Amino acid sequence: MSVSTEPHDRFVIGVDFGTLSGRALVVRVGDGAEVGTAVHAYRSGVMDSVLAADGRALPADWALQDPDDYRDVLRHAVPGALAASGVAADQVIGIGIDFTACTVLPTLADGTPLCELPELRTRPHAYVKLWKHHAAQPQADRINALAHQRGEPWIGRYGGKVSAEWQYAKALQLLEEDPEVYTRAERWIEAADWIVWQLCGAETRNVCTAGYKGLRQDGRYPSRDYLAALHPGFADFVQKIDGPLAALGARAGGLTAQAAAWTGLPEGIAVAVGNVDAHVTAAAAQALEPGRLVAIMGTSTCHVVNGTEVAEVAGMCGVVDGGISAGFWGYEAGQSGVGDIFGWYVEHSAPDGYASHELLTEQAAAQPVGAHGLMALDWWNGNRSLLVNHDLSGVIVGLTLATRPPDVYRALLESTAYGTRMIIEAFAAAGVPVDELIVAGGLTGNPLLMQIYADVTNRPLGIIGSAQGPALGSAIHAAVAAGAHPDVAAASAVMGRVDRDAYLPDPGRVRAYDALYAEYRRLHDHFGRGGDDVLLRLRDIRNAARSVALPTQSGEAALRLEVMA
Amino acid sequence: MSVSTEPHDRFVIGVDFGTLSGRALVVRVGDGAEVGTAVHAYRSGVMDSVLAADGRALPADWALQDPDDYRDVLRHAVPGALAASGVAADQVIGIGIDFTACTVLPTLADGTPLCELPELRTRPHAYVKLWKHHAAQPQADRINALAHQRGEPWIGRYGGKVSAEWQYAKALQLLEEDPEVYTRAERWIEAADWIVWQLCGAETRNVCTAGYKGLRQDGRYPSRDYLAALHPGFADFVQKIDGPLAALGARAGGLTAQAAAWTGLPEGIAVAVGNVDAHVTAAAAQALEPGRLVAIMGTSTCHVVNGTEVAEVAGMCGVVDGGISAGFWGYEAGQSGVGDIFGWYVEHSAPDGYASHELLTEQAAAQPVGAHGLMALDWWNGNRSLLVNHDLSGVIVGLTLATRPPDVYRALLESTAYGTRMIIEAFAAAGVPVDELIVAGGLTGNPLLMQIYADVTNRPLGIIGSAQGPALGSAIHAAVAAGAHPDVAAASAVMGRVDRDAYLPDPGRVRAYDALYAEYRRLHDHFGRGGDDVLLRLRDIRNAARSVALPTQSGEAALRLEVMA
Repeated sequence: MSVSTEPHDRFVIGVDFGTLSGRALVVRVGDGAEVGTAVHAYRSGVMDSVLAADGRALPADWALQDPDDYRDVLRHAVPGALAASGVAADQVIGIGIDFTACTVLPTLADGTPLCELPELRTRPHAYVKLWKHHAAQPQADRINALAHQRGEPWIGRYGGKVSAEWQYAKALQLLEEDPEVYTRAERWIEAADWIVWQLCGAETRNVCTAGYKGLRQDGRYPSRDYLAALHPGFADFVQKIDGPLAALGARAGGLTAQAAAWTGLPEGIAVAVGNVDAHVTAAAAQALEPGRLVAIMGTSTCHVVNGTEVAEVAGMCGVVDGGISAGFWGYEAGQSGVGDIFGWYVEHSAPDGYASHELLTEQAAAQPVGAHGLMALDWWNGNRSLLVNHDLSGVIVGLTLATRPPDVYRALLESTAYGTRMIIEAFAAAGVPVDELIVAGGLTGNPLLMQIYADVTNRPLGIIGSAQGPALGSAIHAAVAAGAHPDVAAASAVMGRVDRDAYLPDPGRVRAYDALYAEYRRLHDHFGRGGDDVLLRLRDIRNAARSVALPTQSGEAALRLEVMA
Repeated sequence: MSVSTEPHDRFVIGVDFGTLSGRALVVRVGDGAEVGTAVHAYRSGVMDSVLAADGRALPADWALQDPDDYRDVLRHAVPGALAASGVAADQVIGIGIDFTACTVLPTLADGTPLCELPELRTRPHAYVKLWKHHAAQPQADRINALAHQRGEPWIGRYGGKVSAEWQYAKALQLLEEDPEVYTRAERWIEAADWIVWQLCGAETRNVCTAGYKGLRQDGRYPSRDYLAALHPGFADFVQKIDGPLAALGARAGGLTAQAAAWTGLPEGIAVAVGNVDAHVTAAAAQALEPGRLVAIMGTSTCHVVNGTEVAEVAGMCGVVDGGISAGFWGYEAGQSGVGDIFGWYVEHSAPDGYASHELLTEQAAAQPVGAHGLMALDWWNGNRSLLVNHDLSGVIVGLTLATRPPDVYRALLESTAYGTRMIIEAFAAAGVPVDELIVAGGLTGNPLLMQIYADVTNRPLGIIGSAQGPALGSAIHAAVAAGAHPDVAAASAVMGRVDRDAYLPDPGRVRAYDALYAEYRRLHDHFGRGGDDVLLRLRDIRNAARSVALPTQSGEAALRLEVMA
């Protein structure tokens, strides 16, 4: 990086813990200049087929991680970024982190992950359940049904549906499938809060994940009665998650001697309260003002937007007081598969010579709107908003013998834009205005995709001015925690960056997409709202067929595949 | 071939005109032994994007051929097969042909194709319209609507719907889009009858195509009143198709001197009346008995089965008295895309390393039924039976990030089997029993596919004993025309071959497929029977978007593609 630094400059470090790796970014407090970065990949990556410790097979829809991979990011990426920046360690005044969420793990009372206990090393349920662990859908279904049946006051704040990805469904799955590990878990904690604990030696719970993933509303968690009705053993679950709450941008503590040794940073510098990748990005993109929807588009998309009032929006992930920044109601929505779908296509469905995002994009860009004749439902990884059902799956209609790879690729890009429009319209219908899109994340580099989003949503689209939005956002929070700026809004104004109106909707394409969006919506409702639950039945059939073919966890049943003679 | 031939042996030649090439087969009259074969590819192949004569672009859904390519088969494949067989020309006593249908062309009164007139050489409508020319769907829609409105007596014989592939829709498209060529067309004739005309110098019309494609029922064609109501200029259309009718296996005439020169066969030998690839195959597979459904599975599938009674079966292609063999009511159904879909997948959707039918089949075969979680509607090339709509298109549901190429491939194989089961159940419901399947065609070589068909349909499945079913069937008809056997049934018994019960249904898989078939049927009815006409609307949008981007036939409009900035 070409930014010159002076000995009197002060810096903060933001660390963004992603799905496959963690990134550290050194940022100047005075102007947000990014002066050095480094990435460290998780050694065990995402464990979605076998457990690394002993190679045992994992059931369908599981996704685990090893928490020591997160510490390795502190050990390697932070010193690496510092070295790359040329900044002296004593110029660093604070560190902040953001994490994927809900990514959650069981620990002892001192924060030791259960999977690090030798006797639990080969128990899948002792590991971190990554956000995209989707095997707790049955539990989520019961959580939702019971909440509606009992009229729980909090359920409306989550669009009427709690996700299978969140703390309660994953914990209930743990309790029901491995009660011993559940009992051993003295704490059940977001990875965001756990890594802060590793940094400062003190447990905190940030209001963002406590609200969005921990169902904390109006100062309360779900009641003991409700939890007991879900499962008698679940009655006291809140004891495992109830910890010292802290606002975003607050100081969780000072860097411990051990964490200072890992990172090469000075002991005692400010450690910011944990936060979530999408939510910190709003600060990085100067998008804390109500009406600016931030879409962080990577493997999946998370949408966050501030509102001045509290509203219940059906199908949203949730609304949390101060969940994005203090003083607003923070709304969150999401699409559980976006870049992952494009990546799936290139890896598993693009023929020889077409396995390139660049080539497919170039050829897809040459098509008039509608010329491919296709329509897809972007549910390859389930549907987070508005349907909140991870057992849904992807659909393509309109395939012909003349269909070519750029046709399908473009249809997949468009399907995710239609999914975003569904979310925007749901917000608008509930009285939460969305006037413009601000996009961050790895997919901002595809101009066709960005233009499609502007055209499909008929909104001006801005692009964050940083390639490392979450890490920059974490650095902004670190600067606030260190006292360098009075609050997150002030820090965002100085350190954040955005290129507003980078893409403007074209009226002709807007009209053409209006007609196609009507088709998307009809298919969406047919397959997602009870017209035909074939996707759910096919999932059940699939899982039953595979369970016959998979070894049980005890290893007693042999692998059995039905091979045709 | 290792069959020894004796000087006193008598032989016939069957010529099978396919979609991309023609095959000649030399067959011994006494036992059906196949002693020599040769294939000649059509020089212009299928013209579905540009016209070979001047490179002009063709609109969507067109498919043309050059009739001289058919003569080239006589000039090259017949002498080639004879040479390969070692049989002397004077041992050959007859020749018979079969053709794709409805493949139809406009000619002068003497049989000269209009596209061979210099002034019409660059007029697309002067060429042969191949069976899979699907641009006459609007005309077919009107033909059907008017027939029902007027209560035309013949419409029920075609399952209530006439196909866009057949003689009337294609001719009406010709009249409406190029009336000058329509007027010049003194004859409108099946390629099957035209090539026989080239062989023997006399025009005949075989009862098979006259019935199935020419709407001849109970000795009559549709009335002048009906045709005039379709279009005033169409009133006398029947004059263009009404010719000397002849039963299957009859002698159309003797080989002309010119055709003898082309083929190297003796002048004057018997030329059998024209026939259709699927229908002659029933004789080759010894499947003339009622209840034995012959499925000729290649790029598409044609089903033929004899019945003892006449019945009106909704969605069938048609029922014709003597349409397969004299003495029975011949029923025909079809699936317009089968091997074409598998080929599309391998060519346009299988990633590097997977572009192999063998590899995909091997990996797909290792899966238990239902384990891929997918369901497809096999409409990549439209739907012939039961829906008779070529504007329909393919659907896949159940896609996830874990979906891999063998999963999709297996789902596509299965989707075509479900389509066959829909047809079998429609026959059964109308009182036309189907007790077993006899499969012919190029796809018989895939044992997984054959087993899936046996399991999905819960019927024993036999395989024809010849790799050249249609050519063998044509040879059988040539033998009858030459007087070597008293009738087609007798010739079939001596010269045909079948391996019955080659695949038997497995009860466990039959049950598993019953559940999946219920899902197929529900999707089929939703997308095909008015639940949601999204496939038709997407086709309209596609065609409108493409028409903007395509040059007009007059060449006045420049190619205009909307390229994103």
